[in-house]
Amino acid sequence: MTKVGIVGGTGYTGVELLRLLAHHQGAHVEVLTSRQESGKRADQLFPQLRGYCDAVFESPDIERLAKCDAVFFATPHGTCMQMAPQLIERGVRIIDLSADFRLKDRDVFQRWYKMPHTAFDLLQEAVYGLPEFDRFSIAHARLVASPGCYPTAVQLALMPLLELGALETTGIIADCKSGVTGAGREAKIGSLYCEATDSLKAYGVAGHRHLPEIEQQLAVFAGESVQLTFVPHLTPMSRGIHATIYVRPKDPDMDFQSKYELRYRGEPFVDVMPAGEHPETRSVRGSNVCRIALHRAPDRKTLVILAAIDNLVKGASGQALQCFNLMFGFPETQGLDGPALAP
Amino acid sequence: MTKVGIVGGTGYTGVELLRLLAHHQGAHVEVLTSRQESGKRADQLFPQLRGYCDAVFESPDIERLAKCDAVFFATPHGTCMQMAPQLIERGVRIIDLSADFRLKDRDVFQRWYKMPHTAFDLLQEAVYGLPEFDRFSIAHARLVASPGCYPTAVQLALMPLLELGALETTGIIADCKSGVTGAGREAKIGSLYCEATDSLKAYGVAGHRHLPEIEQQLAVFAGESVQLTFVPHLTPMSRGIHATIYVRPKDPDMDFQSKYELRYRGEPFVDVMPAGEHPETRSVRGSNVCRIALHRAPDRKTLVILAAIDNLVKGASGQALQCFNLMFGFPETQGLDGPALAP
Amino acid sequence: MTKVGIVGGTGYTGVELLRLLAHHQGAHVEVLTSRQESGKRADQLFPQLRGYCDAVFESPDIERLAKCDAVFFATPHGTCMQMAPQLIERGVRIIDLSADFRLKDRDVFQRWYKMPHTAFDLLQEAVYGLPEFDRFSIAHARLVASPGCYPTAVQLALMPLLELGALETTGIIADCKSGVTGAGREAKIGSLYCEATDSLKAYGVAGHRHLPEIEQQLAVFAGESVQLTFVPHLTPMSRGIHATIYVRPKDPDMDFQSKYELRYRGEPFVDVMPAGEHPETRSVRGSNVCRIALHRAPDRKTLVILAAIDNLVKGASGQALQCFNLMFGFPETQGLDGPALAP
Amino acid sequence: MTKVGIVGGTGYTGVELLRLLAHHQGAHVEVLTSRQESGKRADQLFPQLRGYCDAVFESPDIERLAKCDAVFFATPHGTCMQMAPQLIERGVRIIDLSADFRLKDRDVFQRWYKMPHTAFDLLQEAVYGLPEFDRFSIAHARLVASPGCYPTAVQLALMPLLELGALETTGIIADCKSGVTGAGREAKIGSLYCEATDSLKAYGVAGHRHLPEIEQQLAVFAGESVQLTFVPHLTPMSRGIHATIYVRPKDPDMDFQSKYELRYRGEPFVDVMPAGEHPETRSVRGSNVCRIALHRAPDRKTLVILAAIDNLVKGASGQALQCFNLMFGFPETQGLDGPALAP
Repeated sequence: MTKVGIVGGTGYTGVELLRLLAHHQGAHVEVLTSRQESGKRADQLFPQLRGYCDAVFESPDIERLAKCDAVFFATPHGTCMQMAPQLIERGVRIIDLSADFRLKDRDVFQRWYKMPHTAFDLLQEAVYGLPEFDRFSIAHARLVASPGCYPTAVQLALMPLLELGALETTGIIADCKSGVTGAGREAKIGSLYCEATDSLKAYGVAGHRHLPEIEQQLAVFAGESVQLTFVPHLTPMSRGIHATIYVRPKDPDMDFQSKYELRYRGEPFVDVMPAGEHPETRSVRGSNVCRIALHRAPDRKTLVILAAIDNLVKGASGQALQCFNLMFGFPETQGLDGPALAP
Repeated sequence: MTKVGIVGGTGYTGVELLRLLAHHQGAHVEVLTSRQESGKRADQLFPQLRGYCDAVFESPDIERLAKCDAVFFATPHGTCMQMAPQLIERGVRIIDLSADFRLKDRDVFQRWYKMPHTAFDLLQEAVYGLPEFDRFSIAHARLVASPGCYPTAVQLALMPLLELGALETTGIIADCKSGVTGAGREAKIGSLYCEATDSLKAYGVAGHRHLPEIEQQLAVFAGESVQLTFVPHLTPMSRGIHATIYVRPKDPDMDFQSKYELRYRGEPFVDVMPAGEHPETRSVRGSNVCRIALHRAPDRKTLVILAAIDNLVKGASGQALQCFNLMFGFPETQGLDGPALAP
Repeated sequence: MTKVGIVGGTGYTGVELLRLLAHHQGAHVEVLTSRQESGKRADQLFPQLRGYCDAVFESPDIERLAKCDAVFFATPHGTCMQMAPQLIERGVRIIDLSADFRLKDRDVFQRWYKMPHTAFDLLQEAVYGLPEFDRFSIAHARLVASPGCYPTAVQLALMPLLELGALETTGIIADCKSGVTGAGREAKIGSLYCEATDSLKAYGVAGHRHLPEIEQQLAVFAGESVQLTFVPHLTPMSRGIHATIYVRPKDPDMDFQSKYELRYRGEPFVDVMPAGEHPETRSVRGSNVCRIALHRAPDRKTLVILAAIDNLVKGASGQALQCFNLMFGFPETQGLDGPALAP
Repeated sequence: MTKVGIVGGTGYTGVELLRLLAHHQGAHVEVLTSRQESGKRADQLFPQLRGYCDAVFESPDIERLAKCDAVFFATPHGTCMQMAPQLIERGVRIIDLSADFRLKDRDVFQRWYKMPHTAFDLLQEAVYGLPEFDRFSIAHARLVASPGCYPTAVQLALMPLLELGALETTGIIADCKSGVTGAGREAKIGSLYCEATDSLKAYGVAGHRHLPEIEQQLAVFAGESVQLTFVPHLTPMSRGIHATIYVRPKDPDMDFQSKYELRYRGEPFVDVMPAGEHPETRSVRGSNVCRIALHRAPDRKTLVILAAIDNLVKGASGQALQCFNLMFGFPETQGLDGPALAP
């Protein structure tokens, strides 16, 4: 069994990792950390795991973590870049679900995350963990930067046409809607049931931390800089991201549907829906699948791309586990092969 | 007391009219129709009205309705255009919440609503019931076509800049999110709790009936044709529409905030929020207010306009009542002056 | 205008008072306190109040509050008993929405609230604020202890039969379900959207602070001690309490329906529903009404009493305002006469 | 592979069977029926199954179904009793999720279901499918009557103490709360999102069809008749039943906790929680587990038993699959071993 550590096991991505790893046949959670809950069993905090998880929270400790083959960081930004150098030195491979190693330009990192980057060498080495783009590099990486939730949806929606150079690369609009787990399991007024239920609002319109990550990656696909307007919305649901993306194709008559079907043929976790369908977020609830649909707008000049993922699975812990599978030679779908839960 | 009739009193806009009229000090519901519920008290079907409403459903009958001063149609399209001519002939003034008299071009009507228009003269005469645009014409109208829910939000969001000629009139994106009351009180699988809860999806991307209505009206504001991409989304909440609108101003440095404040100064039901705010739909739940906020996107070329309304109030019954107040000389806010219910 | 102060204006009962007082024609909020939000406008925190409320938060100060005619305490327990003596001395009348003055026995208070009672004289004088039981005493009180949310529903459900001596006074079961606003507007993990949505659980089964309050009051109605099992449940909705109460009548053949109709005849805020109906909490959302229905269980020995209130209105701020109206000579329904908001 | 048929595959229990069978390693859905959707792929109606299910709806046909080893009926009552005789004659084993074979007394069946029972012989033979009570009989049955959702929760909550003869067998109260999937996937006004959300109500207080089923089974456990008051409530959540049960033990000092732990030791799908815990329905969402907790009420005479299940899994399709596993020699947990999905 591959020995796994999870740093920061009390947030929603941490507990989702525990749920997914409970299905996994080749990995065992050896170390699970939480400063605050140290000494408690995980299934005491998360009774849904009773019978599936015997892990006990402990304070984070390099020596203990160094006994693992892989360590997931499900922490706020700033933690992984402090601990990663020592762990990698001891041969531990890291999958970081935080933002620490996603942005290649450390000035951009500092501008958006308000702290200097303290592990610049590793930043250069880190592999961006989107398997559909480059699973080979992930498989050999010592450090994987698992993508953000919004960036995953937007990248999978745009990758095929950007790779083909088929889009105008300015004026792209990504109107994204997220469930409330996206705000994390912190005790904040804005995330209270009675604040978030039965209401929808935009936030961060003037600038959101996922914007530079999205623009960086789209530029990689396109081979040129890409300019995007990105507006996230808080939606009264637990899980799910729905990205509605508006682009102008250079050739409006291109057969977009077949391009997507071709690009994602054989991908276990990208589902290009039949023409005319609209993905609903519940159809991916609890699953690692990204469903995509393409619609021509009535003006015939605009293409509307719809993408739905579960922000905690394909948008976080599921994608991280997919990378882990690639890194440790497991079938890519190990622990990720269940259908969505709907209704 | 002004005598009011409501045709189609069992849908969500019908019962919302009953709720609002319960507050109104100058109107009384004389006739309330429903073929199916004929003979039942309204408060038997809608116990929230117990003590507020003594109306009893009856089958629709021209003679009975002709005794009213005003008749609201809260019916599917096709009903009002059949009954309106006879009622208007007898001096009844009509506020139609359906789509029958919104589209001025009868070919466009027929293309989108799949039926011929049978009251062409009245169609020409009908006044589009958006008081913020033209309250004078509404006040004198015999027949008011109350705007659709999405069109109300989009029009109020765009009117100031289109009137000023300050926007590029192509490539406008209106990404709209609606609560489930927008789908009506029909027994449909897609509107079931377990189908709609905890999920979000786009629908009608290839073409929605509100698109021609929006484009018609925006052209009125702009004095030229306006081209729009409009994508509606079904959102897991009861009430509320949130429009997120992406436009390219001709002069990106214009002081948009002050233009909106000026345009809507004194409007009782349009609230231009302070710079930096994001309206949430619950802040207008049950209220006739439209809240608007303006944000410059990070690219400095795109302006993002956010507008939130309650689809059943400002998006339907509240706006219809606002028109009624104008038509019958009541204060415009009569019956509409309560604050929103949040949380 | 009667000058009103609100201590603790940032919780859900505080903001609900602001909403209700916005409707009130004889009261004006002079002082609104919050240590944390001091200096902010109320409508900045609560945008649903924009246009309805010009109050600005300030730190609580006896001198400022002493200028009011009435002060509402919408605070956690322990605050009112410290400030009330000084305010009453200066002629201010107090409506306390917290638990400080509900329990007449200070030992019981100390056992359940884990603090000594420091205003014993006032505790004796305080009037329990359930108008349907004793509006005369409320009208003349200097200090009203506004009932808890669960106790309000249970008392109104049981009062008629206990007053008649018609029930076995042991073995009563009150199975109660509350919306999440009942947990307050504190940033607590358990109240997060993603913790509370789409789930139901019981809590405090071994003992909840509202139990002694309920038992105290039921004993007043019955003229003898009453023994109750009370189990509250957290329900995924914002507002609403539904009490399902199981009792054994001494005479199972009594005409319970008519007894309730008689007892509550003329009560503006108690609605005894027709036989066979089931109240739903949404039918009282935002309203001060308590709806009650009576059902004989199939065993013919058990009577099931159903009661629904909005926990923030009849269960807190609405009832407090009802008491205020009685105390200051306003019509009892002033500011409380709107119908519920449904859907 | 064991060949499986599902009659009535478009309801919530039908599609849940498809989800669970997608995990199952020894069964394949050969026949899936629906009169209305005949010819459509299942994953067209239920996109969450894309990639997991190749079944196509067909009209129900005895010849086709007779090729299966097992047929599940996920139909309204009345269907299975018509088709079961012919299928059993041809050697097909049946698991009926409807109510047709649950009630042993055909007069009771007729009284509650308003139709005569037309397969009396099979009714006598049918085995009630609660594995925790009698897995041996299920394993050998030709026809299993899968229990109702409420009855499952109530039976598992009460079985240990009734078997021990430790309870007063009159005056038991079962206050039960169900998610909206319990109302089925029919297009009914009462099940609309906007009717069911953000509200709670009791229903069927004067008598619900699950009452005779519960009383019949409790009598089997107790060896004497048991009298129960059962009140179901509609709760704004998709999945989940929470039963709150009030009983009077003969010996209030009995160590109930250890009796339950002993009774359910080794049961894969019953989780007796540690003393003091409260099960929440989300902790069993999507899982076949029933979580139970025991609390002494403050009066020391009443025992409160809390039980939570997912109504679609342990309350319907999961339990049916558990019976199928027993009948066909699969490990009892086959296809049912995933943890719950929370949040």
